[in-house]
This record gives sequence, structure tokens and C-alpha cells, in this order.
Amino acid sequence: MPTKVGPDPSRRNDNARRAILIAAIELVGEVGYPKLSIEGIAQAAGVGKQTIYRWWPSKGALLFDAFLSFAGEGEAAALPDTGDLSADLKLVLKATVDELEDPRNDKAMRAMHVEIVNDPVLAADYRARLDQPMRELKKERLRAAQRAGQLAGDVDLEVAVDLLFGPVLNRWLQRTGPLTHEYVEHVVDTALRGLEPR
Amino acid sequence: MPTKVGPDPSRRNDNARRAILIAAIELVGEVGYPKLSIEGIAQAAGVGKQTIYRWWPSKGALLFDAFLSFAGEGEAAALPDTGDLSADLKLVLKATVDELEDPRNDKAMRAMHVEIVNDPVLAADYRARLDQPMRELKKERLRAAQRAGQLAGDVDLEVAVDLLFGPVLNRWLQRTGPLTHEYVEHVVDTALRGLEPR
Repeated sequence: MPTKVGPDPSRRNDNARRAILIAAIELVGEVGYPKLSIEGIAQAAGVGKQTIYRWWPSKGALLFDAFLSFAGEGEAAALPDTGDLSADLKLVLKATVDELEDPRNDKAMRAMHVEIVNDPVLAADYRARLDQPMRELKKERLRAAQRAGQLAGDVDLEVAVDLLFGPVLNRWLQRTGPLTHEYVEHVVDTALRGLEPR
Repeated sequence: MPTKVGPDPSRRNDNARRAILIAAIELVGEVGYPKLSIEGIAQAAGVGKQTIYRWWPSKGALLFDAFLSFAGEGEAAALPDTGDLSADLKLVLKATVDELEDPRNDKAMRAMHVEIVNDPVLAADYRARLDQPMRELKKERLRAAQRAGQLAGDVDLEVAVDLLFGPVLNRWLQRTGPLTHEYVEHVVDTALRGLEPR
């Protein structure tokens, strides 16, 4: 049996790391990204600034890591599959609308997207750690719909994901119109049915 | 005939204004938004900082004004209408891809979109001065397609515009995949045809 002579340093690191990530998310939600500072995060997490700089080069990198850590924990393992593709897509997208419209998330989520727009390195990290895994789950649901005969067999699934899930995020980011459940219904119905006459 | 006793002050103002707007666009393309400063713009435009602050409250507001002024000048009055909706949409969207992929535009366009994501007031300005007028032209083209029997008569045109024109902007902003002419073809074909089996 190994002898412990003090607190486990790797566990202490994990705890400090987690406290910093939580503090970053909470603080950006309160003060917004422009006023977020490493000093403020350090104070809120009860650590020294140097501890933060040892692990993250910038507030952008830290905030991003925080998002990706917690986004992964809260996500479902798969999209719902009740056998009704349209209903399942609307359910998921309405939940997304509610999440985006929650004022507690607004500043933090916008901060993350600004970083993605500005920084190709963080964007690649986002793609690898969040966008691609989520996209794979969406495509998995669409493949099931193809097997059930609810989606055309020759549809480009990358494009299908963009058509179904892009408009809600776009409307929120660009603020081009009201983000409602009714909008979600129209997007899903229109994408499934297509624009051409039948 | 009115007597001129010196240079026309309103024309002098117009010239200074235009020089400032041009300097702002050129400078953000060189140094990027974070390093853009009112001082730098004033120097490049050959005016005093106070002249700029008299007209614009911040570098964001100035840059935004610059974008909106020049975007309007370069735009076509209407979308092309050769009678082939699919071909016309692909033509316009491929030109958009080329514009977005031009490295000379990258920093400035990203800066504008970051401002829209962050600032609801600038976003409303963008919507009123650029997004809505452009959206009206797109809907006009889609209405012509409805009259020609190429688009279903009961399609929600707001959603149709989002499905056709959103994915390219989204992929560029979010950097979720390569922005190619082939992608444009797939988006237009898939949106027109729909995802359901026929």
C-alpha cells in the first residue's frame, strides 16, 4: 500500500483547476467578456494569478476551456429518437432556443462565440472538442431517420445538420429576428419539406 | 447666385468624414480590431482625434458606420434573375464565398460581426441599414421564383432566406468546415429539394 505523506497533489490540482473554471464561467456571466480579468477570476477562485497563468495563456483560452469542460458534462449522449424525426428535431431546437434566451447564459455564450470568430486556434479546439462530437450525434439521429424512411437516402448529412441546426444559432448570434419556438417549427418543416413545389 | 466666401463647410465635413471611414476600413484590415485605435485612424485620415469623437462615440460605432456606408455602395440593386432560381442562388453564394475567403476582407468582416454579436444597439443598426434591405432583395427574387413555379407558394420566405443564405455565413464565422463552391452547390440543392424522401 503506498504511503501518503500529505494531500494528493494531483487531486489538489484538479480541485484548483475546477474552481478556476467555475469562477471563469460565473464571472463572465456577471461582468461580460470585455471586463473579465485573470485577476478577478483568481480572486473568485481563491488562487493566485500565477496558478492560472501556469495552465492558461490568456483569459480567452481559459474561458474556452471552461465552456468545453461544462458543455460536455451537461449534454445528452444522443438526440431523442421517438421515431418521429420532425418532433424530435423540434424538441431539441426548442430547448436550444430556451437555453440561448436565458439571460444567465447570454454574456458567456456570446463571449465564447466571439472567441471562435476571432481566433482560428480556439475555433479548431471548439470544432474538435464540441462541434464535431455534437455533429456526430446529430448525424447519427439523421441516419436512423434514413433507415426509417423519414429522410432521403442520398442527403448530404453535413449540409442537413447545417440547414436544421444553423438557423437558430445564426438568428441568435446575428440578432436578425425574434428567436421563438414558432421559428423553430418553421425551420424544421421547411428544411424537411424543401423549398420547391411538390 | 450665392456668394462663396471660403470653402463650403458642409463639403469639407463630407470629405473629412469620408476620409475617416476609408481610413477605418483600411486600418482594421491591416492591424485587426483589437489593435485598431481612434488615434491610428485619425492619423491615417489626416484629422484630429477630436474630429472623430465629435461624430462617433467609439471605434466600434465608427467601424460599423464605415462598413454600412461602403457595403451599400457596392451592392447590386437586385439579385440576378435568369429564370433559373438554383443557378442564380449558386452564382450569388459563390461570389459571397469568394468575398469571405479574400484575406483582405477577413479581419474587417470578422470585426463587424463581433460587434454585432456583442452589441445589441449596433446589431439593430446593422439590421435596419444592411440586413433588412438585403433580405428584401432576396425575398423579391424568391417571390419571382414563386410566380415562375420554381418555389412552393406557401413557403415562409424569411425561413427560406435563412436556409439558403445562412449556412455560408455560419460556416465562415464558426469555422466549422471548408467554405467552398461545392458546399454552396450542396446547400442550394438540399434546401430546394428538402430532406424528406420524395
